[in-house]
Parts: sequence; C-alpha cells; structure tokens
Amino acid sequence: MKFEFENPTRLVFGAGSLSQLGEAVRAYGKKALLVTGGGSVKRNGTFERAVASLNASGVSVVECSGVEPNPRLSTVVRGAEIARNEGCDVVIGLGGGSTMDAAKVMAAAVFYEGDPWEMIAHGQENRNLPTRALPIITVPTLAATGSEMNAGAVITNEKTTEKSFVIAKCLFPKVAVVDPELTVSVPPDQTAFGICDLITHVTESYFNGVDGTPIQDRFAEGVILTAMEWGPKAIADGNNPEARAQVQWASVVALNGWVQVGSAAAYPVHMIEHVLSAHHDIAHGAGLAVVNPAWMRFAAESRPARFAQFAQRIFGLALQHPEDAEAAKEGIERFEAFLRSIGCPTRLSELKIGDSLLGRYAQDTVRIIHNSEGLLPGRPPMSEKDIIKVLRSAL
Amino acid sequence: MKFEFENPTRLVFGAGSLSQLGEAVRAYGKKALLVTGGGSVKRNGTFERAVASLNASGVSVVECSGVEPNPRLSTVVRGAEIARNEGCDVVIGLGGGSTMDAAKVMAAAVFYEGDPWEMIAHGQENRNLPTRALPIITVPTLAATGSEMNAGAVITNEKTTEKSFVIAKCLFPKVAVVDPELTVSVPPDQTAFGICDLITHVTESYFNGVDGTPIQDRFAEGVILTAMEWGPKAIADGNNPEARAQVQWASVVALNGWVQVGSAAAYPVHMIEHVLSAHHDIAHGAGLAVVNPAWMRFAAESRPARFAQFAQRIFGLALQHPEDAEAAKEGIERFEAFLRSIGCPTRLSELKIGDSLLGRYAQDTVRIIHNSEGLLPGRPPMSEKDIIKVLRSAL
Repeated sequence: MKFEFENPTRLVFGAGSLSQLGEAVRAYGKKALLVTGGGSVKRNGTFERAVASLNASGVSVVECSGVEPNPRLSTVVRGAEIARNEGCDVVIGLGGGSTMDAAKVMAAAVFYEGDPWEMIAHGQENRNLPTRALPIITVPTLAATGSEMNAGAVITNEKTTEKSFVIAKCLFPKVAVVDPELTVSVPPDQTAFGICDLITHVTESYFNGVDGTPIQDRFAEGVILTAMEWGPKAIADGNNPEARAQVQWASVVALNGWVQVGSAAAYPVHMIEHVLSAHHDIAHGAGLAVVNPAWMRFAAESRPARFAQFAQRIFGLALQHPEDAEAAKEGIERFEAFLRSIGCPTRLSELKIGDSLLGRYAQDTVRIIHNSEGLLPGRPPMSEKDIIKVLRSAL
Repeated sequence: MKFEFENPTRLVFGAGSLSQLGEAVRAYGKKALLVTGGGSVKRNGTFERAVASLNASGVSVVECSGVEPNPRLSTVVRGAEIARNEGCDVVIGLGGGSTMDAAKVMAAAVFYEGDPWEMIAHGQENRNLPTRALPIITVPTLAATGSEMNAGAVITNEKTTEKSFVIAKCLFPKVAVVDPELTVSVPPDQTAFGICDLITHVTESYFNGVDGTPIQDRFAEGVILTAMEWGPKAIADGNNPEARAQVQWASVVALNGWVQVGSAAAYPVHMIEHVLSAHHDIAHGAGLAVVNPAWMRFAAESRPARFAQFAQRIFGLALQHPEDAEAAKEGIERFEAFLRSIGCPTRLSELKIGDSLLGRYAQDTVRIIHNSEGLLPGRPPMSEKDIIKVLRSAL
C-alpha cells in the first residue's frame, strides 16, 4: 500500500441537523446559491425549512431549481451564471446525488473560463481540472451517492450523450449537513436504488482494488452487511428513523474514501452504467443493480478467490478451499437475490433496454475511460467484447 | 446517532514516504522545529534522512531532542521556547506517540501565554483549550498511538504526577507522513505494546460507545482482526514489510476517528493506565495489556451481549443466545491469551506494580476525569472501588 488520503469535509450528522444549515453556511458566505431538483423538497417542506435556517443566520438565498436526474451540462452553466450574476459567495446542493453533483460543478464553473465540459470530460485531450470553486455545502435528501462527503461529481453532456465525472480537491464540500429525517419521504423503489448504489460503491473497490488491503476489505464488508441489515427495514417502513439513519450513514462512508483508501480502485460497473443512463435516463441505482451481478459473474471467472471471500464473509458460506468457484457463484446468486428482494431490477429488459445498442454502449464506455491498451480499467480490464458479453448476459 | 466529524489531516502513507517529508513541510514553513526522542532515530539514520529531505526542499532545521516516554510538561515548555527563540514556523514530531504528542503541544504552547498545563489538565477548573498552533507535521516511527492523524495529545505533569490529555482542532497535523519502513527496527516487545495500544483504542469505543453503531462496530472488528492477523508476523520478523505496513495502517485508523465516529466513547482503560504509567513510567501499551482484559471481565458482568458479540465476531465462537455470558468470558480469555502470545504482560506483577497504591491510582483516575456523580465515565461508569477491584484482579 502506497497512497495519499485527504478528506477535509466537516460532517454534521443526525436527525434534525437541517436546523444547523444556516450556521454552517454563514461561516462561508452571506448570499447562497441554493441548488435543488425543485420537486420533492418543495412539496415536503424541506426547502422552506432550509431557507428559514439560512435566513435566521443572516444568509440570503438565490434559487436554482430544476436540476434533473442525470444532471446536464446546460443546467450547470445556468446555475453558474445565476451565481455570477447575483454575486453568490457560497453554493448549497440540497437534494439527491444529481443536485449535489450539479451544485459542486456550478461552484467551480463560476470561476472557469470557457466550456465547463473541459473540467469533466474524462479521457478527453483538453481536460482541465478545476482548481478553484466557491465554498460548497451539501445537504442530501437521499441515501445513495455519497456525493455529500467527497470531491467527485458526475455530469451528462446532453449534446454528445456522454456521462462523465470529475474529481478535484476544490470540490470537497466545506460542510455536509446530513439529516436522515429528510429521507423519510423517499419512496421504496428509490430507497432500494440508493441502497444498491451505496453497496456498489463498496463492491467496486472490493473487487477492483489492489491486493493486500485487509482493513479496507473489512470496512467494505461492514458497509455491505449493515446496508443489507438495515436497508430492507428502511424500505419496509420509510418512517423508521433508525433504519433511515443507518442507511444514510452507510451511504456516506461508502464513498467518502474510508473504504476505498489505498485501493487505487477502478469502477467498471459504474462506467458501464453511466453509459446506459446517459442513453436511457434510467435511475443510476437501478442500472447498477442490473450491471453489477452480471459483471461479478464475469470477473469471478478470473478471480474466484476474491468472490469466494465475499460469499464467505457476507453470506456466511463455507468454502471448500480459498478458490472455491462454486461458493463464489453462490455468493453472487445470493447478492442478486438480495437486490431483487428489495425491489431492484436485475435484467435490462426490466429497464426496457434491448440488445440493439450493446455495441454502442461498449464503445462509449471504453471511449470515456480506458487504459493504455484501450481496455476499460478493472480486474480484469475489459474489452468492448467483454462489455457486450456482460450486458448480453443481463438482457 | 447524532454527531459531528472532521479530520483534515492529509495522510501520505507507504514505504519510502519519508523522502516526501521536505516537500510536505515546505508548504507550511521554512524553518522547522524537529522534535525527537533523540535515541533510536539518530542511531538508525532516520533523523539524518529526515533532515536531508527537509534541507533539499529548502527547510532549515532546529532540533529539540530528548522527549522522554510519557512526555513531560517541562519538555513541552523547553521545545516551545526553542521554537519561539529561533522563530520556527512549523513543528515536526518525528518519533513515537510521546514525541508526536509533545510536538503537538509545543506547537500550541508557542502562542500560549501562561502555564501550558492549563491547556491540558482535564477536569481542572482553569482549563483553557488551545485555539492556535504552528502547523504540525507528524512522522511516526512506531505503530501504536495513532497520534499522527488526530488532534489529541497526552502529557505528564511531573510535578503533580498527573498524566492528562488535550484534544483541540488546532492540534490536527497538517500532514502525516507515515512510512512503515521506519518501524522495522522497533524491537519485538515495543512492537507488541504498540499492537496492544492500537487494539485498545478500538476496544474502548467498541465497549464504551453508544448503542446503534453497526458500521462502527464492523470497522472496529476489522481493525482488531487485521492487527491480530498481521501483528504476530511483524513481531516474528521485524523486517517483513507487508506486516509492518498492515500494522502501521491499523494503528492510523484505530484512532483517526473513523472507528470512533459517532460513538461518543469514553476511554476508561486508558484513563486507568495513564495513572499507572504516570506513577511507574511503564510502557503505555504494556499497562493497557494488563488493565484491558481485567476491565473487560468487570464490564462483561453488566453487559454480556456486547462481549458475546466480540467473542463471536473476533474469535468465531458460537453463541447459545445473544447474552451468552460463557461465550463472552471465553472471548476475553482468548483475547488475553493473544496478548500473552505476542509477549505482552497481563499481570501488574510483571510490571513490578504491587497492591500498596491501588487506592491512590483509583483516586487519581477519578480526579482527572469523572462525570457529575464523581464516577469514571464508561459502560458502566466506575467508582473508585470498581477501579480498585479491577486492578486487584490483575495483580
């Protein structure tokens, strides 16, 4: 293990913590761009409560609503323009991963000359990572992406149908105000997709990271076991505060770097899913539920011991030997069954995706991110043929 | 769970990372107070390599050597005076926990008017936490205290025989340069004491934290299992780089807050041990190895389910039921046996401590830290009688 780690975001966690938003923001500015999806946070009163907390602390609010799922570059441009024109000195992302991601990139785009897509487009020649952003405050209303406490964002270029990502130090939120009460109104299907998303963050590094990270393995398993214990309770009763808190906390640690630290992990499942949701505008977590088990069966062929360990530690399966391929397979079956049990799709057909564009999805995935041999990074690295094979197995 | 979390320290981890020290320090200053114990780092060449890296980056060095185990207030005062007189603009702690802790408090004492003990003495009326410090860089040469990546320090007031602690935001190191190669010369006994120390950091929050922290429980178990797997290898062969790296990494995460987050844990075992080592100048990890199992037997009486979980998840013991007191007891036996197997003492007599001062140790412990009822915080809170009982059981 050889790595650097840093995560300076201050986390304020707990039921009722939304009331601390104004105080948290006031330390960084007096005029906030408040970025939202616009729908549910207004219907359920979260928006109003956020504004009340901000105003009570002397922070005035400029609104940027209407961030769509799979947030678009044009939305980022629009938000940055509002922030510039209004002289905002802090940006708040109040919503799901899409809203927080859009808010983060808006905060950087305020200072960015030229096309903000240059900051994002992974694998492009002219990529130019942001180095400066307005202070960012995140308030998640969904337990899923972990965007509240990391320096990443995923944006879709609607003109080119590309969905890509940016990770830059200036995108770390100053404060993440994480109030599990805000998630009680999330419907069961979205709750399940969020659980799938957070588990997939962890399985990516677990299966695609470097060897020799026993502590990170245990941390990853801890997140998965907790999400599998408390996730179904949050789905069965959305008003269960304990279940909402445990799932929300799992989503934070699933991608704040504590699990991935030192793993130098690739994220092939996410990369493949990003292309699917760029083309079909499906829920990210739903797409992951389809791609992840199919990818796991593919990857287990070349690395059975790793998947056998997963089967043993997550599902308590006994191994005949460390490379027990049968146990590995059974672990993946059980994982897929768990996803189905919480209401996730596990077939492309459930997402109304057929086989007509499989080649295109594979091409797009590898175009966005590839190693020096033109393969999608991961264990094992994947050719376009491999990606097609995985997707075909999930039709 | 309701909590705040923040840890802004940048971590540079890996074999050979000492060569990055100069670059890391140069971002914060040009003239460094280099704090060391003075002995082993000079003998084994670490000091020389550190100075070479610093000088190569244009950082000049002022030395403050001679920090003793259980570092003394007078040493802190001496270091702060050197830093002030020489106009140092950054402080480096190169050594074990004692050296890093002394360096941290020196960095704050530079700005502190009056007796620096006021910053430390927990439970004193006139306590005055530091709010400002010179930038701190830590370079651990021992895997043990986790001081390299947290905001705490433990100092002994040799005049009053008090050992107490301070935790303050300004004491977070800016950078922790953690190079496991620096620990290859640590002898087996000190290596074992470090392993006991890091495991105890984790058991304190595991057994004394609030209920309802399943992820933190799994993280704690992950650290313990990894330390128990790799610790004996590091002791058997000090030159095993993989074992040194895993133990070092375990010591970082055992007390950087990732395991303790949201647990609001008390540290009764540490508090009792601090008094023992203030009186007898024993190695901290050795004292913990004696006190921890004795304390566990005491605490398991009132909370068997928690210790049964420990027995099940750490030692794979089958439980007859969740409150299985027999399994709980067996888990503690096995833990104590593990400590003995790596060469730790588990009896006070091995530390040449008899029963003549048991009442005094108990008094001192409760004087330094107590709740509103005059009890040592923990699960359960302890009276002086309880402390005497625990210590007597370990004679």
